[in-house]
Amino acid sequence: MAALPNITLLGAGNVGTHLARALHQAGYTIRQIYSRRPQSLAPLSHLCQIGTSNRLEELLPDSDLYLIAVADDAIASVAAQLRVASTAIVAHTSGSVPATALIPHLRRGIFYPLQTFSAQKAIEWAHIPIIIQANDTAAEQLLRQTATTLSSKVYKLTDEQRQLVHLGAVVVNNFTNYLISLAYDWLQQHQLPFDLLQPLILETAQKVQTQNPHHAQTGPARRGDHATIERHLSLLQQNPELRDLYSQLSHLIMQQNKVL
Amino acid sequence: MAALPNITLLGAGNVGTHLARALHQAGYTIRQIYSRRPQSLAPLSHLCQIGTSNRLEELLPDSDLYLIAVADDAIASVAAQLRVASTAIVAHTSGSVPATALIPHLRRGIFYPLQTFSAQKAIEWAHIPIIIQANDTAAEQLLRQTATTLSSKVYKLTDEQRQLVHLGAVVVNNFTNYLISLAYDWLQQHQLPFDLLQPLILETAQKVQTQNPHHAQTGPARRGDHATIERHLSLLQQNPELRDLYSQLSHLIMQQNKVL
Repeated sequence: MAALPNITLLGAGNVGTHLARALHQAGYTIRQIYSRRPQSLAPLSHLCQIGTSNRLEELLPDSDLYLIAVADDAIASVAAQLRVASTAIVAHTSGSVPATALIPHLRRGIFYPLQTFSAQKAIEWAHIPIIIQANDTAAEQLLRQTATTLSSKVYKLTDEQRQLVHLGAVVVNNFTNYLISLAYDWLQQHQLPFDLLQPLILETAQKVQTQNPHHAQTGPARRGDHATIERHLSLLQQNPELRDLYSQLSHLIMQQNKVL
Repeated sequence: MAALPNITLLGAGNVGTHLARALHQAGYTIRQIYSRRPQSLAPLSHLCQIGTSNRLEELLPDSDLYLIAVADDAIASVAAQLRVASTAIVAHTSGSVPATALIPHLRRGIFYPLQTFSAQKAIEWAHIPIIIQANDTAAEQLLRQTATTLSSKVYKLTDEQRQLVHLGAVVVNNFTNYLISLAYDWLQQHQLPFDLLQPLILETAQKVQTQNPHHAQTGPARRGDHATIERHLSLLQQNPELRDLYSQLSHLIMQQNKVL
């Protein structure tokens, strides 16, 4: 295997922080880490060779790879202000921003780890899908090599495919989490502990690791049990938002399973 | 501790089968197992002392506990046909059926394990919430004792509380699974593998084991990122159901997080 590339990391939010730890752990030299917020940099200073900085103009231009892990709407402006050697590869970590946002740079790529990262929670990188893309073969190879040292699941996708996957990620993460938050509020409202539902939430996710979600579908709507659905809707009279969603999702599940 | 009660189990679906295995494993004597479908009984015959039967009238009347784990809409009729000693406790395992469905019997109770059970998948009982209820103290004690041998999480709830929890279970299990099935179809439609999303689904569930789901909320709607939402909606033009849900859930998340 070729020598590991030197990396400069831009961004010290959840993605940047987890990436910094994982790359350092995997033996990469992270030369500098940039963030516009100095307080985000302090906990990462021990991970980089030269140091951290909150000024883009302080970044040295001669790293092999610049990974931009800042907020989606800041990627283009950070990329535009970044001065690097023409041989350097500049990649971002976003699921939805096209690679053209990096266009001032000659060698462009994507390095998108498809996972939800929390400040407090460690992550098992070995099975996290990492989606890569690059505008030249050598850049692609370097991104693939880097991804492979972190995870066994590396996918090369186009901008469009990555956006389609990102949309799916919004559905299975953001939307299911929102439903869980409504259930949380519902239990709170009735002085019932949330840990009644926690094991069920985990098992629901574990089931679809091996089962087609269509086969995992159960419940009153799945079996066309109108009596239970009506009883639940009447319990929800004071909760119009949850009531509407309950009614609509039940209808859709009945339709999907042809029990309407 | 008192001697373990003798149990007769009615129902050999997913709940009945998992209960039979777990109770047998915990050292209980399961005297008979009933199901109206003989083919469901065959794999369970080694778990019971006297034997299996597909005829209610063959069940002996003198077990300590009769656990009815049949479909919700069959509970009342099975209970009505069941002939047992007046000292026997009759309990069902449903989240939504009131205890009064057992009313021909003098000593009635609930034994509701709050989990989703699959035919093929083993279950860790130790942390499954088991919700109990009974109409006399000794019956409650016996159900609590039985639940405690399977799980460390035993809750005594009223009929009404159990229905409220069951509604929450529908939201976090049935509705989130439905959303996952839509994401599955979405990836299929674009020839992208579902395992791109599986680790994210698992991590989403793992996060809310320790974090308040309100704090775990992320994504375009959470940060009021209209550009990404609009781009996703335009990708969904051929998928009206998912498009409507996407639009509605994004709106609700923005509302909840005051970024509208």
